[in-house]
Amino acid sequence: MSPIRKNSDSAAPAAGRNGVTSVSPVPLHTQIREVLRRRILDGSYPPHSQMPSESQMMESFSVSRITIRQALGDLQKEGLIFKVMGKGSFVAKPKAFQSLSRLQGFGEAMSPSGYETYSMLLSAREVEASALVAQRLTLKEGAAVFEIQRLRYLNREPISVDVSYFPLEIGQRLVQEDLAARDIFVILENDLGHNLTHADVQIEAISADESLGRHLGMDEGLPLLRIERLTYAGERPIDFEFLYYRGDAFQYRLRIDRT
Amino acid sequence: MSPIRKNSDSAAPAAGRNGVTSVSPVPLHTQIREVLRRRILDGSYPPHSQMPSESQMMESFSVSRITIRQALGDLQKEGLIFKVMGKGSFVAKPKAFQSLSRLQGFGEAMSPSGYETYSMLLSAREVEASALVAQRLTLKEGAAVFEIQRLRYLNREPISVDVSYFPLEIGQRLVQEDLAARDIFVILENDLGHNLTHADVQIEAISADESLGRHLGMDEGLPLLRIERLTYAGERPIDFEFLYYRGDAFQYRLRIDRT
Repeated sequence: MSPIRKNSDSAAPAAGRNGVTSVSPVPLHTQIREVLRRRILDGSYPPHSQMPSESQMMESFSVSRITIRQALGDLQKEGLIFKVMGKGSFVAKPKAFQSLSRLQGFGEAMSPSGYETYSMLLSAREVEASALVAQRLTLKEGAAVFEIQRLRYLNREPISVDVSYFPLEIGQRLVQEDLAARDIFVILENDLGHNLTHADVQIEAISADESLGRHLGMDEGLPLLRIERLTYAGERPIDFEFLYYRGDAFQYRLRIDRT
Repeated sequence: MSPIRKNSDSAAPAAGRNGVTSVSPVPLHTQIREVLRRRILDGSYPPHSQMPSESQMMESFSVSRITIRQALGDLQKEGLIFKVMGKGSFVAKPKAFQSLSRLQGFGEAMSPSGYETYSMLLSAREVEASALVAQRLTLKEGAAVFEIQRLRYLNREPISVDVSYFPLEIGQRLVQEDLAARDIFVILENDLGHNLTHADVQIEAISADESLGRHLGMDEGLPLLRIERLTYAGERPIDFEFLYYRGDAFQYRLRIDRT
């Protein structure tokens, strides 16, 4: 592998610039992608830093705009960089991940890996159940339920907004506990004596609206992982949640068996 | 529940417009959200149709822009509508879903629910393994692997781009089979005799780049569900894939047990 020179002005045309050469059988955009990938992974381009502009890269690699765009497109698909409309491309942080193999709260799941987690309580109040919330918690539409909204932090950076609905009496008890430091699952089990058994989960991708973007410190329109989760204690659904994770900071992992 | 009148010009100020009233204890934006939700669910606003503009809704509900935005923000969070920058809000289609409880190909998973699936082969060729592909398939970087790119259709609309990498000899055999109509998992098992056992899966949310957007018929920047999946036959990893699903058309579902 030829060494990579940054901002080289002296590369001979035959060898190309930055170790990229048109005489290689490997397409130019692939060579450039691999150069950029290494610079991201070795920290030359650190997390959150802005990538050089397309014009700068055209100049430094001596290639066309379309070649640079193909290389950047590949890195974007891989999640190594993300694009901000009108601003350019930025280096993504390595994503934190949570296993879906076992039902766990965010703190429970992340702490053993050495992550520091914390929640900021955004609101806690009695509301009327929407049609969807009522259906999931098997209540009448408009029935009183308790809504708790939290902003969750991972290593001191905001990573998700959690909006949770509980039967009224459960929510009123929960809010007396330390919701900043403790997972709701743990409080439900250890303090309130509910024996959690399982959850039904839906996972999808949506765009951040203005309010989620503001809480999570990201631009409106950027992608979020959205989870709808209904947690049961035996036959009784007792916790219905919407979780919105920053797309650039988080992933789920699981192993699935064929049979 | 009071009846909802559309485009009413005659609502008395006390009763408000469209059944929305400021004397109710329910916040205005909540009332409007529920009116809009019903119009979406009952088909008054059909899938893919453009929602009335904010100005039109301010006029028809006699409320401020911030109230309309709160109502639309709630519906967007719920996945019922999506926003296209500079164009307005549109009604989302009901999402198709695939269960993650068992490892299945897209066709295998969707057909029993009455969906019609089909794949268009975008490309099939020998390529050099990138660092990531090589690591996953336990090959040397730059080793020859087979890449198959497919555009997958659900009920005749594009829903995902699948980019799959195989050890060379497996890919060369696969491409002789009917990849338009049959799942690769099924061909691997029934025709090539590989006994698939499990897969390691990563799930995240990213933005569509220009090329994925073009294939999937969506604007660049809109959210995609991105899956990285490594499928094993026993100890041997034989199929490494990147799946990109339209965020507005697809979700995963699964049940997770607490213990």
